[in-house]
Amino acid sequence: MSASLIVGISGSASSQSYNTALVAAAGSLLGERLDFVLASGLEDLPFYTPDLDGDSIPESARRLRELVGRADALIISTPEYNYSTTALLKNAIDWLSRPYGAHVLVDKPVAIMGASQGLLGTVRAQLHLREVLHATNCDVVARPEVFVTQVGVKFNESHELIDSPTRSLVAELVAALLDLAGIDEARDVA
Amino acid sequence: MSASLIVGISGSASSQSYNTALVAAAGSLLGERLDFVLASGLEDLPFYTPDLDGDSIPESARRLRELVGRADALIISTPEYNYSTTALLKNAIDWLSRPYGAHVLVDKPVAIMGASQGLLGTVRAQLHLREVLHATNCDVVARPEVFVTQVGVKFNESHELIDSPTRSLVAELVAALLDLAGIDEARDVA
Amino acid sequence: MSASLIVGISGSASSQSYNTALVAAAGSLLGERLDFVLASGLEDLPFYTPDLDGDSIPESARRLRELVGRADALIISTPEYNYSTTALLKNAIDWLSRPYGAHVLVDKPVAIMGASQGLLGTVRAQLHLREVLHATNCDVVARPEVFVTQVGVKFNESHELIDSPTRSLVAELVAALLDLAGIDEARDVA
Amino acid sequence: MSASLIVGISGSASSQSYNTALVAAAGSLLGERLDFVLASGLEDLPFYTPDLDGDSIPESARRLRELVGRADALIISTPEYNYSTTALLKNAIDWLSRPYGAHVLVDKPVAIMGASQGLLGTVRAQLHLREVLHATNCDVVARPEVFVTQVGVKFNESHELIDSPTRSLVAELVAALLDLAGIDEARDVA
Repeated sequence: MSASLIVGISGSASSQSYNTALVAAAGSLLGERLDFVLASGLEDLPFYTPDLDGDSIPESARRLRELVGRADALIISTPEYNYSTTALLKNAIDWLSRPYGAHVLVDKPVAIMGASQGLLGTVRAQLHLREVLHATNCDVVARPEVFVTQVGVKFNESHELIDSPTRSLVAELVAALLDLAGIDEARDVA
Repeated sequence: MSASLIVGISGSASSQSYNTALVAAAGSLLGERLDFVLASGLEDLPFYTPDLDGDSIPESARRLRELVGRADALIISTPEYNYSTTALLKNAIDWLSRPYGAHVLVDKPVAIMGASQGLLGTVRAQLHLREVLHATNCDVVARPEVFVTQVGVKFNESHELIDSPTRSLVAELVAALLDLAGIDEARDVA
Repeated sequence: MSASLIVGISGSASSQSYNTALVAAAGSLLGERLDFVLASGLEDLPFYTPDLDGDSIPESARRLRELVGRADALIISTPEYNYSTTALLKNAIDWLSRPYGAHVLVDKPVAIMGASQGLLGTVRAQLHLREVLHATNCDVVARPEVFVTQVGVKFNESHELIDSPTRSLVAELVAALLDLAGIDEARDVA
Repeated sequence: MSASLIVGISGSASSQSYNTALVAAAGSLLGERLDFVLASGLEDLPFYTPDLDGDSIPESARRLRELVGRADALIISTPEYNYSTTALLKNAIDWLSRPYGAHVLVDKPVAIMGASQGLLGTVRAQLHLREVLHATNCDVVARPEVFVTQVGVKFNESHELIDSPTRSLVAELVAALLDLAGIDEARDVA
């Protein structure tokens, strides 16, 4: 019996991204009995268009669909660009959400969060993201909502999440995700 | 004195896109005294990240900013993917909306519309798009709202907009845009 | 053992409301083994304010909380006024959603739908309603989404839902609600 | 020549409302040459329904329409209840937005803001409110956006706005509103 697989997705393409760091922090809270993989190469995906989505699809899209298809649950962190989620993340979701009705996101347990330098913590981006994910028919954790503000003081210089209340909140989100996914961490043995 | 320039932006990367056809239809309604250019190469833009947005930026982004910077007004048409606008369009807007407070979208007159095969005509995508454009501080036409449904019967096989009520509505949108932009078409001579 | 109770809520105060008729239609599809009650008197609720929400609350609010507290699931139908849900419905939800964290909507299974004379079928109102209900921490059915357009041809003069595809869709929504609520209709005996 | 009239609307029915205090603060920043009236009696409006909106309408609705009809501009402050605006405010807007296409909100200059005890400052309520006002075809100030957080430290015990940065931001909003409305405060003499 293999361990459950949790896949992390960061909505940022920046090498300095606090959202990538936040997904990594969530992954580190999962415990050693679960497999955690951070999805990579999202910036290599072409913009979704039906023209490219036929019998053969770009290799980057095929790999992402395959990884998410194997996942028992997803953890997504989104920056907020212009009051919405990022094109990088939206594009990944658009690729994942096809073919209609038979794609890898259907019924997939998903946790969302986000981090920003300002005081609103991506609340607007997450409103959009929640609607987008509703469209895909995946199963999004309702609570807690994680709006990480003022990232400069919540992470250290190595981009580790050091703020204790935020760590607790992320742990609570992870627990809610595992519960939604029916994963009993104590029993999950590789 | 040069003619006013209207730039069209399609949110679709598909060669068969009805949204591209809708932007072209709007352009054809502008009259010969105005210059109309359909922005191209949006699919060549990398996903926006601050890492790439420094003293030098990708050539595709530089060209888009330059074109939109010269425009007197924009006409955007968006598909609806997963209840929101497309990553292609969102990414273009994100590139256009920097640097903060000093970018080419500030106070830019913009008209939005959208076309879909279904019955809702991109109403959800346009709600998101309107919020995103509000974030950029451009000046979006309020009325009319153009939700083109059932594209298969509104366009002919050459992707020309043949539905008369829709043509009138697009003409009304174009007139509202020119009015907002302070462009008097009758006087606008190249 | 008593029968399960489903409570219907109409977002309209009109005596001629198609949304009230839609809730009634959903109720009639529940089968005789379930109890169905249409919440009444929502127009008697004062506008929610903390001033009125103390140790004693208005009788109309007390009765609504009591009814919903006994319900195993809710079916809500909303008109669309100005791109959003109605004040009548929002006010009822605001009364139901207190006290914070210990109210009757927590984890309550809820199905939403809406009917309009136009072609959009309350899609915008339901986007707002879904966000409002997310705030209350109830458990909203994801699919199917029921946007009833052109009510004049879907209902007869007695305000009975006669459109067969719409009846099937409402039946599908009711089935999804009962499934979410863990109600096995066949076994539910008064 | 009479002075310009600015009408304030608070979305709260509470006697202790910080949103009412915020509208009053905005009014006090208008200067003595402008008339400012805080709309009262919104809690006396019945819930909007077409049944009540005929040749004769409730006196409370008639008075509100008359007051807003005389106004040169509106200043609205909304609490956030359940991630949205309040039923009290939504109901007032619904009454003001009829009859369709010929109502008092068409082209009316409007400024919006909001105050909350928490850290998000009604950002979600204002997103909904902005969409609702867009539906009414009024003309909403785009910038600045005023999200007043942690009201307990921004107002004193007499509910006067004492936080200096917030006062400046409200003054900036008022100036933008007057500019949008074409009101030159210096020249506006009763």
